[in-house]
Amino acid sequence: MEAVTSPHGATTIGCQWVKAFPSKFCDKTMKIARKTKKLGQDDPRRMVHSLKVGLAVSLVSLFYYFDPIYDSFGQEGAMWAVLTVVLVFEFSVGATLGKGLNRILATLVAGALGVGVHCLSTLSGRKGKPILVATFVFIIAVITTFMRFFPTVKARYDYGLLIFIMTFCLVSISSYRDDQVLEMAHDRFFAILVGCCVSLIVCMCLCPVWIGEDLHKSVAANMEKLSNFLQAFGDEYFTEESNENNKSYIQGYTSVLTSKSSEETMANFARWEPGHGLFRYRHPWKMYLKVGNLTRDCAYKVEALNSHLNCKIQTPAEIRGKIEEPCKRVSVECSRALREMASTFLNMVRTSSANTHIESSKKAAEDLKSLLKTNLWEEADLLQIIPAASVTSPLLEIIECVDKIAEAVNELGKAASFRQSNVTVLSEQPHSIHQESIQHGSNTALPVQHCVITVAE
Amino acid sequence: MEAVTSPHGATTIGCQWVKAFPSKFCDKTMKIARKTKKLGQDDPRRMVHSLKVGLAVSLVSLFYYFDPIYDSFGQEGAMWAVLTVVLVFEFSVGATLGKGLNRILATLVAGALGVGVHCLSTLSGRKGKPILVATFVFIIAVITTFMRFFPTVKARYDYGLLIFIMTFCLVSISSYRDDQVLEMAHDRFFAILVGCCVSLIVCMCLCPVWIGEDLHKSVAANMEKLSNFLQAFGDEYFTEESNENNKSYIQGYTSVLTSKSSEETMANFARWEPGHGLFRYRHPWKMYLKVGNLTRDCAYKVEALNSHLNCKIQTPAEIRGKIEEPCKRVSVECSRALREMASTFLNMVRTSSANTHIESSKKAAEDLKSLLKTNLWEEADLLQIIPAASVTSPLLEIIECVDKIAEAVNELGKAASFRQSNVTVLSEQPHSIHQESIQHGSNTALPVQHCVITVAE
Repeated sequence: MEAVTSPHGATTIGCQWVKAFPSKFCDKTMKIARKTKKLGQDDPRRMVHSLKVGLAVSLVSLFYYFDPIYDSFGQEGAMWAVLTVVLVFEFSVGATLGKGLNRILATLVAGALGVGVHCLSTLSGRKGKPILVATFVFIIAVITTFMRFFPTVKARYDYGLLIFIMTFCLVSISSYRDDQVLEMAHDRFFAILVGCCVSLIVCMCLCPVWIGEDLHKSVAANMEKLSNFLQAFGDEYFTEESNENNKSYIQGYTSVLTSKSSEETMANFARWEPGHGLFRYRHPWKMYLKVGNLTRDCAYKVEALNSHLNCKIQTPAEIRGKIEEPCKRVSVECSRALREMASTFLNMVRTSSANTHIESSKKAAEDLKSLLKTNLWEEADLLQIIPAASVTSPLLEIIECVDKIAEAVNELGKAASFRQSNVTVLSEQPHSIHQESIQHGSNTALPVQHCVITVAE
Repeated sequence: MEAVTSPHGATTIGCQWVKAFPSKFCDKTMKIARKTKKLGQDDPRRMVHSLKVGLAVSLVSLFYYFDPIYDSFGQEGAMWAVLTVVLVFEFSVGATLGKGLNRILATLVAGALGVGVHCLSTLSGRKGKPILVATFVFIIAVITTFMRFFPTVKARYDYGLLIFIMTFCLVSISSYRDDQVLEMAHDRFFAILVGCCVSLIVCMCLCPVWIGEDLHKSVAANMEKLSNFLQAFGDEYFTEESNENNKSYIQGYTSVLTSKSSEETMANFARWEPGHGLFRYRHPWKMYLKVGNLTRDCAYKVEALNSHLNCKIQTPAEIRGKIEEPCKRVSVECSRALREMASTFLNMVRTSSANTHIESSKKAAEDLKSLLKTNLWEEADLLQIIPAASVTSPLLEIIECVDKIAEAVNELGKAASFRQSNVTVLSEQPHSIHQESIQHGSNTALPVQHCVITVAE
């Protein structure tokens, strides 16, 4: 207290602060540098995207430097082109294309409507004109703003409606001062068209990021995460000590629980993308959402299973031991089925190999049920049996979920014309799709480590 | 086939199409009208918002009509003001304020930097200038675009960074043609400031929508939804027939499962809002996310419980009947605790009344456990017992979750200085907070139907 109030104390604190400043500043800088490095390493496409934006903006800024181009564009045109590039250029091709087409279409329609309103209001004379224009502006702004609340419209045309209001207002209001409205609307539309084209060309031609491909990989990665949990579950639950190193690996599934909105965003953008690689235009992106939802349903069951991991101490190991073998089998077979599906799905191959594992898990479930039927625990305390026995109900539900996922994946495979194949399973080593694929920009199919795929078609 | 290929058939189809067109068009129009009506009725604030946008745009368009204002603004200034209003005006005060402040600050900093680059590049002569300017534009665009990937920056300053790139590019590039850069930057900044102010005044003064209040109500409504499920669960599970009418009511909790991203968005916007009503500036919005996460954890358990509803037929009613009483008591007491919390939380009152219910549910859990200890089901088939018995484990976990939620709500209440109170519980009629509150724009505390609150402090 004294140090703060006395002038001497304040000076001391000031000195300390000044002395500490360089080291604090260094710490902060180092921290930011580390974060930046990690961000770049996690997904190198981020760095590439930043460079692409820099390039696109520099390209349109050329319009200012070269007299012939500048003269045909004019100052305002050049400005609109720069503005368009900055606002339209997005990380993925789908998002850039969606925004660009929205912008072009909205500018065209709003410009035409603005010119129409200009012509109409000119008829009403000098005095009536501002009133008529203001009325139109008000009505159009109200209607368009309300339209943005429709969920289906918001998902695809939100940006377009925003640009529509903006362009309509600018064109029709300027008509009050400027009689060259048609020319102005034409120039602006042309500038925006050029800005969109520059963005699209740079976005699509230099290391393009296809959001549809990201969605495809993310759906596969989610299955893989569930598979990781189920692979490890048996060992975690039926042994006394828990492996702390394994924790973050098997807890990966938690991100699946909250992946709904990001998947929906990706699917919305993906619908704008043209065909590329193995993805056609009109690829059935909606069906990815169905697979995603089923995977999430499965993740809820996995979450229920996970809560049993935390309270396994309630049950003595010998009681748990009695159901160990079939439970482990169910869990491992489900894990294999999911991994199989994730891997073949990722490589866009249609196969029924996962069904073998699902059948095995169903057989294990029957064994488990008949084991429970025998009066296995006659002398044991029911209170100790219940936690162990109740592990079986989420496990059995997971089989059903995996079955549904397999069906949906198969349907999707048919709709998207995945290749048909015969698969021979070799080994079951877990490998992380996520690390390799989601952060990988290219379209090439990943090497499949644990199965040999013979394409039969 | 024939009808399509023969000219006569084609004509017939054409005629049919033309005849059917008016009725089809009418159907479509009616459908859209119904949807529009529903959208407006679901949340009347949407209509108000649309009118507010129309008003704000019409207001700034006045700059064009009145000569004195127009002369001081210029055509470009008036255009920037309109553009700002359209782009900045959002549904809630928080979002508008966040975007507006981002835009003002970004324009100020980018304008200053642009003028600085102009001065620096002027020194390098006519030939060096474009190269220097282009280099700066490239570097700034790359760095700023990369900064947008930092999650913390993205959450609050994404729009600001976008405007920063845009303004910097426009100012520094135009400096190549126009030597009045300082004046231009000043004019543009002034126009944007006016645009932001008009948006903010209209947004805040006419029926303001406070997103923080929406978040507050949504967190309470989520607790209420879980409460609804738990209230009905006992009757649903322990009776033979299921009440189909009840289905959508008790399934309300499913929306809680996927509410994470919308809560995060709301919390981010809420942090921009000034104090209003009972909410101070710097209200602990982050703690709402904690309560939201705990509620979601509880919803995952409820999801596990829900899956038992679907497979209750596996267990004969008499077996389920043996644990009916304590199970129902746990579920109902948890439901009451959640409803109590939702209601007092909504009214910003701090009370320990929910704890009474949590204690009761814990007591019921003890009863349930001791019931399971007695060899109640000696002669029954274990396979039939297990599904019924395993209902107990999510139920017991829910008690823990509710306890955690109560703790988090209490902490939040302390941090946000909720009023302390004594509560007398009168009746337990379920009532839907969601319908009344979320879609209700005012800040007045809702009438609490099932408890009398005596404010002590």
